[in-house]
Amino acid sequence: MTLIKKLQQTMRDKKLDMLYFDEPLTVAYLTGFESEPHERVVAVLVFSDKVWMIVPELEKQSAKAAATCDRILSYKDEVSPWSLLKDALKGETNKTRHVGVDEESLVVSRYHELKDVFSTASFVNSTSLIQNLRVIKQSYEIDIMKEAGQLADKALEIGMSSLKNGITEAEVVALIEYEIKKYGVEKMSFPTMVLFGDHAASPHGNPGSRKLQPNEWVLFDLGVVYKGYTSDMTRTVVYGQADKKTQEIYNVVKDAQENAQNFIKPGVRAGDIDKAARQHIEDAGYGEYFSHRLGHGLGKSVHEYPNIAPGVALEIEENMCFSIEPGIYIEDYYGVRIEDCVYVTESGALPLTHTPKEMIELPIKE
Amino acid sequence: MTLIKKLQQTMRDKKLDMLYFDEPLTVAYLTGFESEPHERVVAVLVFSDKVWMIVPELEKQSAKAAATCDRILSYKDEVSPWSLLKDALKGETNKTRHVGVDEESLVVSRYHELKDVFSTASFVNSTSLIQNLRVIKQSYEIDIMKEAGQLADKALEIGMSSLKNGITEAEVVALIEYEIKKYGVEKMSFPTMVLFGDHAASPHGNPGSRKLQPNEWVLFDLGVVYKGYTSDMTRTVVYGQADKKTQEIYNVVKDAQENAQNFIKPGVRAGDIDKAARQHIEDAGYGEYFSHRLGHGLGKSVHEYPNIAPGVALEIEENMCFSIEPGIYIEDYYGVRIEDCVYVTESGALPLTHTPKEMIELPIKE
Repeated sequence: MTLIKKLQQTMRDKKLDMLYFDEPLTVAYLTGFESEPHERVVAVLVFSDKVWMIVPELEKQSAKAAATCDRILSYKDEVSPWSLLKDALKGETNKTRHVGVDEESLVVSRYHELKDVFSTASFVNSTSLIQNLRVIKQSYEIDIMKEAGQLADKALEIGMSSLKNGITEAEVVALIEYEIKKYGVEKMSFPTMVLFGDHAASPHGNPGSRKLQPNEWVLFDLGVVYKGYTSDMTRTVVYGQADKKTQEIYNVVKDAQENAQNFIKPGVRAGDIDKAARQHIEDAGYGEYFSHRLGHGLGKSVHEYPNIAPGVALEIEENMCFSIEPGIYIEDYYGVRIEDCVYVTESGALPLTHTPKEMIELPIKE
Repeated sequence: MTLIKKLQQTMRDKKLDMLYFDEPLTVAYLTGFESEPHERVVAVLVFSDKVWMIVPELEKQSAKAAATCDRILSYKDEVSPWSLLKDALKGETNKTRHVGVDEESLVVSRYHELKDVFSTASFVNSTSLIQNLRVIKQSYEIDIMKEAGQLADKALEIGMSSLKNGITEAEVVALIEYEIKKYGVEKMSFPTMVLFGDHAASPHGNPGSRKLQPNEWVLFDLGVVYKGYTSDMTRTVVYGQADKKTQEIYNVVKDAQENAQNFIKPGVRAGDIDKAARQHIEDAGYGEYFSHRLGHGLGKSVHEYPNIAPGVALEIEENMCFSIEPGIYIEDYYGVRIEDCVYVTESGALPLTHTPKEMIELPIKE
């Protein structure tokens, strides 16, 4: 069954006459049309028996070529897409009594415009409806995500082999992003993070002009967008040799990551996966230094539903994809994070990235 | 007067007790704290006598270091920022009778959460309030934007000098983005566009594996983010020699661009700037091939208020910054666009980028 047919079935169950989505990745997911519309409206309207799109005149040709839908309404910059929609619907707006929207991505101004077009309709938050569809990956999606994962492994390899005395964090970032684009990568899924030494103790640090010195740890957090899907991984490696204390902490994180990954199978709760990692870090005495959730979903977006965090009751299902990324961050001293994204199979989780998790010591280069 | 003081003055005029913003660039603009919060809430709350921020626990240290505000509320992933806010406000929510929000960036789910926190308040769309503040650039902003413009010129130079037989569009993009990062550029302001030959006839085309051949035109549309501000420019150059017809069309676009740029001064209307370019293209017989607005504002965002488009009544003021980018796109044949961003002075517009607009013919390289 196509995604649209699935949506239409859920609409019947929920008594919705129309679904409106304008989050660019949801539009791409449902129609195949990828766009970066900035402030312009690119939207998909799913009715019980047809699918319409609204696109700027500029994008009409590309939308036609890429998208599978029954009608494309295109508007020039000086025309309101909302009055265009009203005209196209003619008297039909009254038949649309229940409208579903994704309240987590729809902005208030467009919500008001839609309420004006469908002035007699009731509006229903349908965030969970599209989330529940997107969260279970189709096999073609997982195939692409495996490729995106391989490219992340490759990007990490490029980063590791570039390390030498005096190179800056920003230079390593530039090299990774340059080299990986030769492999067909459209763009990185987020700004590549390369942090040296105690810089890595800030989980959201910014790479800068800090120069690499022998025996420093290096944290890489990176991912690519490939054929419209993302990857995301983190490794923390030693440039030279690590002292005993940091090695110990590294292994606490590694074991926590593996505990969580091995715990996953259909039916377990997201919060319990988080616990499988967090408990291990707490037991080792570092609980206060693991300050974020264990993971997040990914797919077309690098951060999407679900949350793998304390207390989340969601039951994990086959073909969900999410990250497992515990870390320990001790200010002014040391930061380590290890992250793989996984997809869930009948028998457990399989990683989308394959760089070893055992501590990696890289040779010092002059 | 600081930006916050200006906002607080406007709040008094409009009888607003609080302003809430969570668009990351507005937050950075008002507080100095740059972030990419994805689905997490990073918000600034401006009261008549104080400024609060809400940030994830993860970002607390960075926010403290960067932001000027009176109080930072930080929340862990498992805690709702809204209940945290409610608690922090104690009984004060009733005093907040009129709340301003930016309806063009605020999503509906957060709007509902805010309405729940300030359950007795009326909500007022304050998009124009923040737009009108951001649209008039401070002198320090224009200084940074000049630097960002110089870096765009530099990036274009890198792109032009990389052209050789057989190089692909994607390779040129990768080279530009790699080399320009060595100059302190954080990231590109949008995916760099390099299009060869009739590829450029799609105004929003995607660079791919097309190989460059002698005597093709090459369209570059690019910009950088530097110190939190963007640049944006387009040049269309010849790799080899152009035939007479395409040269003629090129010059129509160049003259249209210059007409518009020369027309700008404080007091003219945005729609009339558009007309100054569009009329020239229409008179030359190419009106139907100029399918988009003339320009857009830029600053912290590469596409922001105002629109320079047909019929826009907005009066241009000193220190506004926007793009002037007419184009002619003839399917399967030829596409040309020329774009500079300008800032408005008392006596007229000055460009932020300085690459010549006269037709550039580049040498063929084996």
